[in-house]
Amino acid sequence: MNFLNLAETNAPFADDLVAAASRVIRSGCYLHGPETRAFEKELSEQCGADFAIGVSNGLDALRLILRACVELGRIRKGDAVMVAANTYIASVLPVTEFGLIPVFVEPDSDTMNFSWTEALRFLDENSRSVSPLNVSVALITHLYGTPCWDSHAASIMRERGMLIVEDNAQAIGALAASSGFSGSRSTGALGDAAAFSFYPTKNIGALGDGGAVTTSDTAIADTVRALANYGSDRRYHNIYEGYNCRLDEIQAAMLRVKLRHLDRETAARAETGAAYDRYISNPIVTKPTIFPDMTQVWHQYVVRVPENIRDALRAHLASEGVPTDVHYPDPPYLQPCYEGRFRPKTLTPSIALSRSCISLPIANVNVAEAKEVARIINDYRP
Amino acid sequence: MNFLNLAETNAPFADDLVAAASRVIRSGCYLHGPETRAFEKELSEQCGADFAIGVSNGLDALRLILRACVELGRIRKGDAVMVAANTYIASVLPVTEFGLIPVFVEPDSDTMNFSWTEALRFLDENSRSVSPLNVSVALITHLYGTPCWDSHAASIMRERGMLIVEDNAQAIGALAASSGFSGSRSTGALGDAAAFSFYPTKNIGALGDGGAVTTSDTAIADTVRALANYGSDRRYHNIYEGYNCRLDEIQAAMLRVKLRHLDRETAARAETGAAYDRYISNPIVTKPTIFPDMTQVWHQYVVRVPENIRDALRAHLASEGVPTDVHYPDPPYLQPCYEGRFRPKTLTPSIALSRSCISLPIANVNVAEAKEVARIINDYRP
Repeated sequence: MNFLNLAETNAPFADDLVAAASRVIRSGCYLHGPETRAFEKELSEQCGADFAIGVSNGLDALRLILRACVELGRIRKGDAVMVAANTYIASVLPVTEFGLIPVFVEPDSDTMNFSWTEALRFLDENSRSVSPLNVSVALITHLYGTPCWDSHAASIMRERGMLIVEDNAQAIGALAASSGFSGSRSTGALGDAAAFSFYPTKNIGALGDGGAVTTSDTAIADTVRALANYGSDRRYHNIYEGYNCRLDEIQAAMLRVKLRHLDRETAARAETGAAYDRYISNPIVTKPTIFPDMTQVWHQYVVRVPENIRDALRAHLASEGVPTDVHYPDPPYLQPCYEGRFRPKTLTPSIALSRSCISLPIANVNVAEAKEVARIINDYRP
Repeated sequence: MNFLNLAETNAPFADDLVAAASRVIRSGCYLHGPETRAFEKELSEQCGADFAIGVSNGLDALRLILRACVELGRIRKGDAVMVAANTYIASVLPVTEFGLIPVFVEPDSDTMNFSWTEALRFLDENSRSVSPLNVSVALITHLYGTPCWDSHAASIMRERGMLIVEDNAQAIGALAASSGFSGSRSTGALGDAAAFSFYPTKNIGALGDGGAVTTSDTAIADTVRALANYGSDRRYHNIYEGYNCRLDEIQAAMLRVKLRHLDRETAARAETGAAYDRYISNPIVTKPTIFPDMTQVWHQYVVRVPENIRDALRAHLASEGVPTDVHYPDPPYLQPCYEGRFRPKTLTPSIALSRSCISLPIANVNVAEAKEVARIINDYRP
């Protein structure tokens, strides 16, 4: 068993992918062409946002959103951005890059996502502080494929004038339940703008780097588009000091092949996740919560065990041929690049999570294999 | 005739390109794999630098070089960077992004490149100034494929502790003559580090965005590599606040196909350039100088005419089926994003050049076609 084998992931589509690549190679159009336009349309339809802009990768998608909001005057340098304490560092890098102050929000123990309760508590405390931060953004990460959403808390933030930016790198196809809108709504269309990553290991992965910004805000869409193309609104006319963050036509063409199979991919992961949930019964293991009112897309299936046996259980699984991973070994604020800069008083939950989590294989794992992994876990005694 | 038809450019290699894409698609390895490593080795051999690092595009290559030099303490925020006044804005954006001050150097009328004479004059004046700028970098652009090099002036800059960074986006395969080293040396190995662009229209173009950094400085190479991969020196260990600026395996594979034909591409452009030089005889046209002691790679073949007839001559050519272009319509310091920020006292040469230059078609143009274009130009009377 592999933790993830991308040749296997892409094998069912390989002929279509080669045909798509061949079509682009022979077309002579390699950037900003028909494949990207079609992919943008298909992605906006998938999530229900008015606009999708294909960009270079997920980190750049977040960079472009924050930079666009700075250019539009909706965020000012020195503002604070609330961000999950247990996310990948790519969610935090754009915050510090643009001179914004990250406020790390500890995870909820049930969702393993940014705790809305803690976020609101922080906002209340901050507003009573003598020198309150100007908290202008909640940057929510739908970690592991579980929507991070609380429509009531989000409304309170919106009433305070905050922007809600989604890091949807891990949750394409997920649906959040809400009392704020009828039925469910896709991640990528919950906040003011969302960043998608199509890194090859993602549920919908490019064959290289790729990403997208979705939004229903025309000004954000226009600004992101310009910033991603040297800051130009037309050829050789640079209205912003921009970047080069374009999506290649060849990647757009291949993403279109794979996006057509998103529902199948989501269903396969749901089946495997359900099998893990059903068959893992070792009491030392805390399984991820399955929320009946939302669609989780299981980018990772992350169990938690006591810190002191985490490595032993991983070794036990490895010895039985089951590779595992850890997402993530350290919270971003403990990375050397942020040494001594961002350590709020108590950060126990994110550190504890980083030391207790194990990601089980989920991609291309069928029910029989999940059952076997569960048996190996159930046989384990510390 | 097209100004540039990329389907035609890539047609001779199309089967090899599709085979390369297919190989990568089926491999399961899409980033930081064997194709990128092989391409990096081949590119370093091409230019003679010790290291080549495949990155996302040419702008990012320059961003990574400057940011690496900041991280290494070789450039400090507020330092000045000398840069060509008549280059594409991508050469300037990384300067301002990192809080450096661009000092625009006017073009030499013979080379149309950054004037080394003017640069040295500025350095002398600056050193006598009451509050001199700390000029730490000369960022030289080998514009249109003509090496921008003066080994004597470069030595003087080096003695002053300045770094020399090459923007080699337009000059892969060019050779600079020099009294400072025996024989000639490739652009990309002249300075402390160089940025390559493989934008599809370049002499060696990817089938999408791509770029590279070359250097013989181990510290710069290591820092660029880390910065381009989220600032990490190993997985989930971020020593810098980095970016995602990776070259896709699929683009590396296709660049390897095309790099093998660099000499043929250079020779074809030399032949067309020589034909233009031989056959264009209308006295209103100033042809680009051919320097016998260097190899120019004619990314663009740029003629100059009096400002007041530039548009009329372009219209005349267009009416005869010859499309042309202008590189570039405005110097970067006149772009809206730099409005009112960088206007030294006299900038006449770069503005004059922007109003008098015409880029003739050069890619996929054979000698007979060049002769015909020359005839159309020669027939023109203002």
